[in-house]
Amino acid sequence: MTKFKGVVPPVVTPLNPDLTVDYPSYTRVLEHLIDAGCHGVFVLGSTSEVIFHDEKTRRDIIEHSAKVVNGRVPLIVGVIDPTTDRVITHAKVAKAAGADAVVVTAPFYTVTSQSEILDHFRYIRDAVDVSLVAYDIPVCVHVKLQRQTVVTLAREGAIIGLKDSSGDDGNFRYALLDLAEHKDVFLMTGSEIVVDTALLMGAHGVVPGIANVDPHGYVRLWNAAQRGDWTAAKKEQERLCRLFEIVWVAQGRVSGGAAGIGAFKTAMRSLGIIDSAVMPRPRASLNEAETARIDEILRAAGLLN
Amino acid sequence: MTKFKGVVPPVVTPLNPDLTVDYPSYTRVLEHLIDAGCHGVFVLGSTSEVIFHDEKTRRDIIEHSAKVVNGRVPLIVGVIDPTTDRVITHAKVAKAAGADAVVVTAPFYTVTSQSEILDHFRYIRDAVDVSLVAYDIPVCVHVKLQRQTVVTLAREGAIIGLKDSSGDDGNFRYALLDLAEHKDVFLMTGSEIVVDTALLMGAHGVVPGIANVDPHGYVRLWNAAQRGDWTAAKKEQERLCRLFEIVWVAQGRVSGGAAGIGAFKTAMRSLGIIDSAVMPRPRASLNEAETARIDEILRAAGLLN
Amino acid sequence: MTKFKGVVPPVVTPLNPDLTVDYPSYTRVLEHLIDAGCHGVFVLGSTSEVIFHDEKTRRDIIEHSAKVVNGRVPLIVGVIDPTTDRVITHAKVAKAAGADAVVVTAPFYTVTSQSEILDHFRYIRDAVDVSLVAYDIPVCVHVKLQRQTVVTLAREGAIIGLKDSSGDDGNFRYALLDLAEHKDVFLMTGSEIVVDTALLMGAHGVVPGIANVDPHGYVRLWNAAQRGDWTAAKKEQERLCRLFEIVWVAQGRVSGGAAGIGAFKTAMRSLGIIDSAVMPRPRASLNEAETARIDEILRAAGLLN
Amino acid sequence: MTKFKGVVPPVVTPLNPDLTVDYPSYTRVLEHLIDAGCHGVFVLGSTSEVIFHDEKTRRDIIEHSAKVVNGRVPLIVGVIDPTTDRVITHAKVAKAAGADAVVVTAPFYTVTSQSEILDHFRYIRDAVDVSLVAYDIPVCVHVKLQRQTVVTLAREGAIIGLKDSSGDDGNFRYALLDLAEHKDVFLMTGSEIVVDTALLMGAHGVVPGIANVDPHGYVRLWNAAQRGDWTAAKKEQERLCRLFEIVWVAQGRVSGGAAGIGAFKTAMRSLGIIDSAVMPRPRASLNEAETARIDEILRAAGLLN
Repeated sequence: MTKFKGVVPPVVTPLNPDLTVDYPSYTRVLEHLIDAGCHGVFVLGSTSEVIFHDEKTRRDIIEHSAKVVNGRVPLIVGVIDPTTDRVITHAKVAKAAGADAVVVTAPFYTVTSQSEILDHFRYIRDAVDVSLVAYDIPVCVHVKLQRQTVVTLAREGAIIGLKDSSGDDGNFRYALLDLAEHKDVFLMTGSEIVVDTALLMGAHGVVPGIANVDPHGYVRLWNAAQRGDWTAAKKEQERLCRLFEIVWVAQGRVSGGAAGIGAFKTAMRSLGIIDSAVMPRPRASLNEAETARIDEILRAAGLLN
Repeated sequence: MTKFKGVVPPVVTPLNPDLTVDYPSYTRVLEHLIDAGCHGVFVLGSTSEVIFHDEKTRRDIIEHSAKVVNGRVPLIVGVIDPTTDRVITHAKVAKAAGADAVVVTAPFYTVTSQSEILDHFRYIRDAVDVSLVAYDIPVCVHVKLQRQTVVTLAREGAIIGLKDSSGDDGNFRYALLDLAEHKDVFLMTGSEIVVDTALLMGAHGVVPGIANVDPHGYVRLWNAAQRGDWTAAKKEQERLCRLFEIVWVAQGRVSGGAAGIGAFKTAMRSLGIIDSAVMPRPRASLNEAETARIDEILRAAGLLN
Repeated sequence: MTKFKGVVPPVVTPLNPDLTVDYPSYTRVLEHLIDAGCHGVFVLGSTSEVIFHDEKTRRDIIEHSAKVVNGRVPLIVGVIDPTTDRVITHAKVAKAAGADAVVVTAPFYTVTSQSEILDHFRYIRDAVDVSLVAYDIPVCVHVKLQRQTVVTLAREGAIIGLKDSSGDDGNFRYALLDLAEHKDVFLMTGSEIVVDTALLMGAHGVVPGIANVDPHGYVRLWNAAQRGDWTAAKKEQERLCRLFEIVWVAQGRVSGGAAGIGAFKTAMRSLGIIDSAVMPRPRASLNEAETARIDEILRAAGLLN
Repeated sequence: MTKFKGVVPPVVTPLNPDLTVDYPSYTRVLEHLIDAGCHGVFVLGSTSEVIFHDEKTRRDIIEHSAKVVNGRVPLIVGVIDPTTDRVITHAKVAKAAGADAVVVTAPFYTVTSQSEILDHFRYIRDAVDVSLVAYDIPVCVHVKLQRQTVVTLAREGAIIGLKDSSGDDGNFRYALLDLAEHKDVFLMTGSEIVVDTALLMGAHGVVPGIANVDPHGYVRLWNAAQRGDWTAAKKEQERLCRLFEIVWVAQGRVSGGAAGIGAFKTAMRSLGIIDSAVMPRPRASLNEAETARIDEILRAAGLLN
């Protein structure tokens, strides 16, 4: 059985006003997640705004994360860039810095076929001796990892897991069914709002961005599901769905990405977890009215007094 | 009046079998284009497979190009990466290496609004003292540079030009109309197959990928249009449309991108311009049957005996 | 509490070789569904190939259905056509013929805004004294009924329910949460493969096309969920997921719609429920090899010896 | 050589406040177009809001149109509905009422493959003895008539022409090239804003919606192109592009379709051609502020004092 499972939040990357990483805040985020009982951490994912960071910053983040986590939970690292050989470079750095597994998307900017996606994962697997997790995120890369692609890669050992952020729950279910005999493969949903149902389907883990704000909620949800108490799981999920509505507060004024991660950061600042809610360029930060609205939602969810 | 105009091919990047850049072949490509009378060259664009190259390789390509071109024609350089500050890093390198202008897309992987796109260009303009050309390529970045975005950036001086590879000729025409008074702004179409009509609309330049294969044809087309001989321009364009059909020979077996640029490379190899038709990973090269079919098309176009 | 709930299959419309409706087979389909314990029937939906039927045929189908059903379960009728006043005409016919409720999509062919969609439903509601169910099926009408649109219509009483075939389970969940206090509103999922999880979320009903083939399975699934036995519900669902794979047998040779409904008809013919698997023009019927493969899947699901 | 060619406007359908057709206004529209020198009229197309009209209204419109046109120019009639046999019914009515040709889209609501689209046209051709024009309008039917589909249908005689409203000018050009030897086939662009360039490519006709407002402009443009005066054609086109901006005046408040055809009707009312600018449900009419802005654009285009 794989050591990867459970609640594995994609870690928000707090920034200083000069756009450098705010490592003291970053350390507090990691401690906050581990203290709450999360089963792993996923750094340098989309929620971490990985795509805004250059190679040196990425290396620093991984090394800092490895030092803080210190083996207490698995450290999963996103190695996200457009094409195969650039990903290989990131993967080597991640392995050297102590990643337990790396997370790889389909190529992007370049338009790829499923056949090229298969080769992409195989080339990376052959080039770096580190476990690969496939990341299905069509909203960012504009191609879906099809069921057959994921199943083929898992069966031939090219990947050890999947993070499914496609929103296609039916397809995710078929991957679970197809790989049911492969006990060493773990399949995680990237959704925040259908975690109870993904667990009912048999998902091995969940990667909810908003767990940065409320990790305890997702750990309770996970525990309820593990003991088969689906009523409790559902009730916790519904509370978290209401909390998740912070991501739409700024939508329209800013892009969906800026509204969502900006809301996470704004909430974490209100909760004292991080010092500032600075966003990388060209994203704009949330404003005062939006912050006030987010604070209301935090209060309704029982997170803020 | 701007110094940028005319036929400005996006330069194919020939590779060695070990995936390094084949500089002797690369030099021949540049000489081939300049000898044919092209009015500029655009290196490190989508046709150059820029997105597959790491920072060091990009720097080497720019420096090599600057040395070969040596001021004979303007050197325009793509600085294409997902987010603002990463693009700024590339733009500084390009400027230092002698670029006359740099070409910038909207952010990608991250989903952006038009407002964030405006800021993206403004931040880059403020950070680097080099002329910016906006690159509208929704097929790669999955967002359109809207007419109002382009016109706003041009009017405020943030960009000096546009390369429109969106296929939306009506929108391109409105940009031409809206900016007709701005004589220092140049608007180029990225299409290969409607160059005559783009020139009739008033386009200032054209960036046809297949000009790597047949630059003389596009120079003749440009000259015919300049003297108002639209019948000759159309006739030349129709011949080039038939030549352009090489890009579909391998489609289906490989992705559209691999089929298209693979066809350019295959044709250039058949014509003796470059030594090999190697593709960057995960793209596959064209096979023998596809090469034979491409050679047939080259013969029909009068390029091969 | 609404009288609508439970398993409400969208009824397949069997055809004769001359493309007229095969009413003896049609009657058997209805009896098959009601005998199995289905809680309602939905005729003239997408699975019924409503869009291929003219006004007279639709009227005949409704009248025939009303006669066969004879009040044993609710009769829900699709009134699907592109624009408001054409839908009103169908709705009047459906009401006169005995429909308990009618199912209305967003307008199609014409591109509409959410505001026009709101008006569309309100105009129909005002014109015909019959209960409306909103049908969210973006794959056919190419616009999503947004959460706020559905909630607004439900709260103002313009609709009494929703059939959600959008595949967006997160959005469906929010509609359930937003309307939790409205006990007279029923929300149904159109999915076949996530019925257990939709019921865990609190869905009031399910509209699975493949229930035409195996209604007993979905009734068992519903009953398991009603008594809170989620393990049994999941197990039944997983069996049905394997059965559902018949819809992909012909995909590629014919369109997805023809492959899916063609598979339902082919399976129902193999099971002796209907006499022929004729498809309306321009759809092609499944061939012998595809039928053999479908029979294999039926055997694996325990439906065929 | 075909009798179809030139400027063939899609005729706006004026409505009375009770949503019936305003035939006196409708007659004036037809006379206005024929007097201006248009070479044909296309009734019951998308611009005619065909999809809002029931069978009886459509029949009345065709019969009225045939009576008014009275053979002075060809009468082309849209027979637009979702599926094959429903289109056949409309086509028979159109033929009986005097249509010179009928215009057929791909199926819609149902998702179709290119193979099914081929069969769709063939079934209609076999069922009705009337000339078919293929209508490529992916924005409404959500599938493209691919180049090979159009060329196949034209070569086998199933269609005699094409109305291309896809905005894909490159693809249109290839259809022109592929069918250059078929002198009996006519290919028309549905665009308003690239008519000069479509004619340079060799288009046989143009179907501009805004010709309802300014038919003289398009006739002048056509005539300039016929005599090879591309400078004059371009200049006329640019004036018409500025006029066409009326279609965006209401966009955002209402859907794009309502904004566009609503603008045509509003302008035609201001010009005294029709009596009211009523829109079919659920579309909203333009308001006073929007009308005032449209009148300004009409004045700038020299159409209103």
